[in-house]
Amino acid sequence: MSGNTFGTLFAVTNFGESHGPAIGCVIDGCPPGMPLSEADIQTDLDRRRPGSSRHVTQRNEPDAVEILSGIYQGQTTGTPIALLIRNTDQRSKDYSRSAESFRPGHADYSYWRKYGIRDPRGGGRSSARLTAPTVAAGAVAKKWLALQYGTRFRACMTQLGELPIPFEHWDHVRNNPFFAPVADVAQYEQYIDALRKAGDSCGARIRVQATGMPVGLGEPLYDKLDADIAYALMGLNAVKGVEIGAGFASVAQRGTVHGDTMTPQGFRSNYAGGVLGGISTGQDLELSIAIKPTSSILSPSASIDIHGHSIEVSTKGRHDPCVGIRATPIAEALLALVVMDHALRHRAQCADVVLPLPPIPAAPA
Amino acid sequence: MSGNTFGTLFAVTNFGESHGPAIGCVIDGCPPGMPLSEADIQTDLDRRRPGSSRHVTQRNEPDAVEILSGIYQGQTTGTPIALLIRNTDQRSKDYSRSAESFRPGHADYSYWRKYGIRDPRGGGRSSARLTAPTVAAGAVAKKWLALQYGTRFRACMTQLGELPIPFEHWDHVRNNPFFAPVADVAQYEQYIDALRKAGDSCGARIRVQATGMPVGLGEPLYDKLDADIAYALMGLNAVKGVEIGAGFASVAQRGTVHGDTMTPQGFRSNYAGGVLGGISTGQDLELSIAIKPTSSILSPSASIDIHGHSIEVSTKGRHDPCVGIRATPIAEALLALVVMDHALRHRAQCADVVLPLPPIPAAPA
Amino acid sequence: MSGNTFGTLFAVTNFGESHGPAIGCVIDGCPPGMPLSEADIQTDLDRRRPGSSRHVTQRNEPDAVEILSGIYQGQTTGTPIALLIRNTDQRSKDYSRSAESFRPGHADYSYWRKYGIRDPRGGGRSSARLTAPTVAAGAVAKKWLALQYGTRFRACMTQLGELPIPFEHWDHVRNNPFFAPVADVAQYEQYIDALRKAGDSCGARIRVQATGMPVGLGEPLYDKLDADIAYALMGLNAVKGVEIGAGFASVAQRGTVHGDTMTPQGFRSNYAGGVLGGISTGQDLELSIAIKPTSSILSPSASIDIHGHSIEVSTKGRHDPCVGIRATPIAEALLALVVMDHALRHRAQCADVVLPLPPIPAAPA
Amino acid sequence: MSGNTFGTLFAVTNFGESHGPAIGCVIDGCPPGMPLSEADIQTDLDRRRPGSSRHVTQRNEPDAVEILSGIYQGQTTGTPIALLIRNTDQRSKDYSRSAESFRPGHADYSYWRKYGIRDPRGGGRSSARLTAPTVAAGAVAKKWLALQYGTRFRACMTQLGELPIPFEHWDHVRNNPFFAPVADVAQYEQYIDALRKAGDSCGARIRVQATGMPVGLGEPLYDKLDADIAYALMGLNAVKGVEIGAGFASVAQRGTVHGDTMTPQGFRSNYAGGVLGGISTGQDLELSIAIKPTSSILSPSASIDIHGHSIEVSTKGRHDPCVGIRATPIAEALLALVVMDHALRHRAQCADVVLPLPPIPAAPA
Repeated sequence: MSGNTFGTLFAVTNFGESHGPAIGCVIDGCPPGMPLSEADIQTDLDRRRPGSSRHVTQRNEPDAVEILSGIYQGQTTGTPIALLIRNTDQRSKDYSRSAESFRPGHADYSYWRKYGIRDPRGGGRSSARLTAPTVAAGAVAKKWLALQYGTRFRACMTQLGELPIPFEHWDHVRNNPFFAPVADVAQYEQYIDALRKAGDSCGARIRVQATGMPVGLGEPLYDKLDADIAYALMGLNAVKGVEIGAGFASVAQRGTVHGDTMTPQGFRSNYAGGVLGGISTGQDLELSIAIKPTSSILSPSASIDIHGHSIEVSTKGRHDPCVGIRATPIAEALLALVVMDHALRHRAQCADVVLPLPPIPAAPA
Repeated sequence: MSGNTFGTLFAVTNFGESHGPAIGCVIDGCPPGMPLSEADIQTDLDRRRPGSSRHVTQRNEPDAVEILSGIYQGQTTGTPIALLIRNTDQRSKDYSRSAESFRPGHADYSYWRKYGIRDPRGGGRSSARLTAPTVAAGAVAKKWLALQYGTRFRACMTQLGELPIPFEHWDHVRNNPFFAPVADVAQYEQYIDALRKAGDSCGARIRVQATGMPVGLGEPLYDKLDADIAYALMGLNAVKGVEIGAGFASVAQRGTVHGDTMTPQGFRSNYAGGVLGGISTGQDLELSIAIKPTSSILSPSASIDIHGHSIEVSTKGRHDPCVGIRATPIAEALLALVVMDHALRHRAQCADVVLPLPPIPAAPA
Repeated sequence: MSGNTFGTLFAVTNFGESHGPAIGCVIDGCPPGMPLSEADIQTDLDRRRPGSSRHVTQRNEPDAVEILSGIYQGQTTGTPIALLIRNTDQRSKDYSRSAESFRPGHADYSYWRKYGIRDPRGGGRSSARLTAPTVAAGAVAKKWLALQYGTRFRACMTQLGELPIPFEHWDHVRNNPFFAPVADVAQYEQYIDALRKAGDSCGARIRVQATGMPVGLGEPLYDKLDADIAYALMGLNAVKGVEIGAGFASVAQRGTVHGDTMTPQGFRSNYAGGVLGGISTGQDLELSIAIKPTSSILSPSASIDIHGHSIEVSTKGRHDPCVGIRATPIAEALLALVVMDHALRHRAQCADVVLPLPPIPAAPA
Repeated sequence: MSGNTFGTLFAVTNFGESHGPAIGCVIDGCPPGMPLSEADIQTDLDRRRPGSSRHVTQRNEPDAVEILSGIYQGQTTGTPIALLIRNTDQRSKDYSRSAESFRPGHADYSYWRKYGIRDPRGGGRSSARLTAPTVAAGAVAKKWLALQYGTRFRACMTQLGELPIPFEHWDHVRNNPFFAPVADVAQYEQYIDALRKAGDSCGARIRVQATGMPVGLGEPLYDKLDADIAYALMGLNAVKGVEIGAGFASVAQRGTVHGDTMTPQGFRSNYAGGVLGGISTGQDLELSIAIKPTSSILSPSASIDIHGHSIEVSTKGRHDPCVGIRATPIAEALLALVVMDHALRHRAQCADVVLPLPPIPAAPA
């Protein structure tokens, strides 16, 4: 209820602060009998890891995960899987001054007003570092969904600041420092370098996709699949917008265009983004998120301190000039967690439903 | 867990089908001692009601609400408030054919695959009619928040199909058939009339706002205030996108611009939309939603039936050419439900927090 | 969260007051495709109904249930099933005096202190009348469990005040005014008649049983099957104790006796009551509850009013001299709701588990 | 939903296995600003610790707790408090044989049937070792309740096997190897020594009490305070019965006796055990639990293995001859967790209630 558990039947409880002893999570509800080891989780953690390219924060964290429970002889047992990641590169410094000032665009002010106390070290609980346990839990969900249904998740950057990024091919994403679906990143590197030099930052737009989706996931009235996707992605640090399928472009579409027609061979289009009436259709899930520019910038800006006095704030230290870069694996993980939870919810209520039609193949997006 | 309850501490459980005997909801968690009568609820129901202008469905439903419980001598008692709305204008017709066909853009297909059974009468449970109990519950939340904190909710249409609607003044909205903030609606009426004549439909963009917000609402990691807002609004029928504050425009903003600076007199801008780190700052909540074009259109389109055969579908009957028109009061209600729930959650955990600063006035959006 | 919803995946939200317009509930999570009509529910409601014998309250309520939603062509659709029972025999009288006094053993005082307001008419929300919707929801769960697994529920009275009731046969219970498993009820009728004449009341002990239990229900650490059974039954009005299997007698048992030994043909005893480690073993569930004497008695007793002054209270009106008599069908319903919820929870997480042993038949209790 | 989280607003998520790397829990919802250190928690852990007297298991676990998160400068911050306890004294041995056999009275069989896989090492997840994180979380709740309301928790043994234990004084409990309220324990030591020599075990009865209770805790219909207490305590390993106040003795009481009368100075008796209508009255909470004899005994008994063949099972190793001995601090912790959760729930809904009466002092039990 205090907002640190994600999901209901596949429930992930997250803990930790940026500069505390450790971060981690407890996954409750993973079905028994699935092979699982640290290596399954580490791959995704490494993709999210700081210091992986010169365009992201240079904090040096191995983010090595330890499984504390829930596994016996290499298999899940149906009991909670606790994952622990020790913090190792917290720089000791004097936080007494930053503890009293509110950085514009940060959670400093709202935490202070909510709790009356705030861990200021590295952003404390509001740090993007806390997405690491989410990514770890997402890796478990991904593995189960891949084994069970063949569902896969991927994401890529489609806009960097003012620069739209054309979609060339998913294959480019893996080894691309921007997780961009293009071969040539020269212009994006120049753009980011110039921003950093100017002590400034920019936003990004990320596309997220799930393929091999089971049909029938999502609850009809409130816990719609798209509603829970929006919840998950809007909850990611710095996200200011979420759209499914045609998204905001659907406002100017006509009904004759937007409604995805069906043939015995499948859907002819996917403006719905894989969800109708809040329930998955079996088409690919397609969504986009907007990420705001990083708030931690070198350029000074006006603010106040906890006493209400005017101050000037400038954030030194190791920060991502565009937090959208590392958001890609996190967005995949969040989508996987939503799908996983709804897959289990669906089994509970509809395990007896004999599906009256063979799966209709998803049309190309 | 089956997705028909909204909220946790102010929990609204919705029931009913478009053409069943009744629709309604049970509100659990309303604090005791608040004056409440049917009249408090009916006002918002009437704003959402079908048949209120020639631009919306002509189904004639009085939507008269009956309070079944939870009130004693005109006051809430802290026990569940059950609200009942009888369906009165269900047209009897033969649904045997529509029961076997899947309308493009509708929930027909996904319901069929999920449950193996589907109430086809008027859209059954997936009908927009089921937003009426949500509006009724929202009216209760609105009243409590207004009395307790002075919080107010309002919404308006900012785009109708291809037509952007300039913001003139909130005062225009109340008596405007499109809930648009403009004095002159001639061009929008022509646009809708032409669409209906063409047997087509269009989408809309809606702006939603809360003023007089308490500070400190929202949980920091997963149940962020903006995450729950996105969940609530994306869950509204036909919504395909949600953005908070600067939304998708923040992608192209610089960090030096986006971060709302603070002075002892308050924030200088509101690109954050009233939320930082998932917690309300006391500024106005500002958000926008994208509503897709109505799927129920007269123009025929290709589809399949439950046996997998090709068919052609055309939806006759009483339908809104733009479901976005009546979405305005519903969007307000959903935002109110989210704020209400977080207000109670905040009291549970942080009732003892002595706020260290006087409330900072919200800057103009 | 405000305690009016029972269960998680088969969630029953209860509303209403004893003398309000109606009582009822919304069942969310019933699997689709089960035949269901009012008649399935009415049978159990009639067993619980007031006025069914001269030993219970003479309030004359037909308790006719109306299904408002969730059924199409006689089958459940997977959407919420709302059940409505209108109150018809609320006697109009002046409650202004009782509204200000606290009856010993009643919820008057604790409601007043909790909410600062209280509906005093007929006990308001704390009335045993509110068990009717629970019984109605239990009837739905019972039907599903009988169809799916062959699980059956029954209960009987095993002690009335000081009088232990020997177990003769389950067949006697159905037409027995005390729900007692005996043929001759003369001594119990004399006992109750004497109590009523003395303006006094007594307690009862009830045995509850489920046969045909699926194996594997219950969560291992906190939401154990026996823990949830205890929660359900202790939550029934007037219950002061719950025991499973050998219960309090197990304190004086030796480990060599208590541990139910197993053979290839099944368990040799059932001191565990059908639950080991919080998970059902497939044996019969066996439990007992203690019900306190009715607090509404004619004999006057000392109390205070809302101003803190000494008063004398005597409860006139139509009250059960032993509330345990009508508790039997309610206890069955509560046990059925617990088993139903855990059956769905089990399907979510363990749907893939291939059970390595054939079901072991339950040994006689 | 998978049953490893206790509570709603003060939610404790437990993880770990008896012989895995670690056990622990995450507490979500602790109010901010409370001083907290490992020492606050260690005291209660030490009372529950194995090896503390010769009458309990000789497994040698320091049970040293590490706080991983949620504390800044010695105070709670309102964010999750993760507690870690490393397992250190897991004896390496060959579990291949015990992995295939079902010990009577244990969770072996039910886990196997539920999950199809089971960690057999030291009982895995069903081990009483998993109560250590519950005790740790309970210590946090106890501290908050003591500071906020002056509420205190204590428990003592009132029966050991066939031997009733007279209540002499609470002061004897602290240094008593049986947590018994008596000065002289000679007869209990002889009793336990004889049992161990015989390779047998016995049960126990424990009384649990909370003093200084706030009024108004508990939700009226389903989540009654006594219902949640029964859930908590019945969920403790080996518990087979729970009673509140007069408990099973209330069956034979008359209404004229059981109903606790009130005077302007307070209640005259406490047969209700501190709860009326599911809501705390401010009197002491009084309850008793029945604990079954330890199932791990040296005496051989008949059973089957996972292939359905007859076997004989005898449990060697370090086991408590009466698990009730160490249950005392655990029962206190569970009661504290229930009260804590309801205290926060009450604040959410009823923070505005102005209590119309001064606190009534609890009468002697």
